[in-house]
Amino acid sequence: MEIKQAFGVILRCYRKKANYSQEKLAFDCNLDRTYISLLERGKRRPTLDTIFTISRALKVSPSALVTDVEKLLVNKNSSLS
Amino acid sequence: MEIKQAFGVILRCYRKKANYSQEKLAFDCNLDRTYISLLERGKRRPTLDTIFTISRALKVSPSALVTDVEKLLVNKNSSLS
Repeated sequence: MEIKQAFGVILRCYRKKANYSQEKLAFDCNLDRTYISLLERGKRRPTLDTIFTISRALKVSPSALVTDVEKLLVNKNSSLS
Repeated sequence: MEIKQAFGVILRCYRKKANYSQEKLAFDCNLDRTYISLLERGKRRPTLDTIFTISRALKVSPSALVTDVEKLLVNKNSSLS
C-alpha cells in the first residue's frame, strides 16, 4: 500500500467520523470537492499544508492523522510480506 | 510563521541531530541536495511522501516530525499575537 492510498483511507475514516460530506469538508478547507475525492481515492499526494488545513476542519491534530497513516501502512504492508 | 517554514526549522534540527550533511540526507532520500536546502529554508511545501522518505533516512517517525512542526507553530504564532 502506498502512502497516498493510506492517507486516503484515513482521511475518509476521519471525515465520516465527523459526519461531514465531501462537500462540507471541501467548503471548510477552501478546497475543491473533486480534490477531496481524489485524496480519498489515493490519487493525489497531499502536502503538509493540505494535511494541516484538513485536520483543522476535522478538529483533529495533523500528527494524529499521520500516526494513523503510519499504523495503517505497517499493518497493510506487513500482512502482505 | 508558515507551515513550510516551521517544517524547514524542524528538518534542519533533526538533520543536525543525526549529524548528517544535506548531501548525505539527499543521497539517502534519493532527492536533490538543492531540494533539501529549499525545504530547510521554507521555500518548498513537502508532500506526505517526502516527509516519510526523510523521516526514514533520519530514523524518526513521520508523526514525531509533524508533532514538532505543530508545537513550533503554536509557540511562534502565539508569541506573536
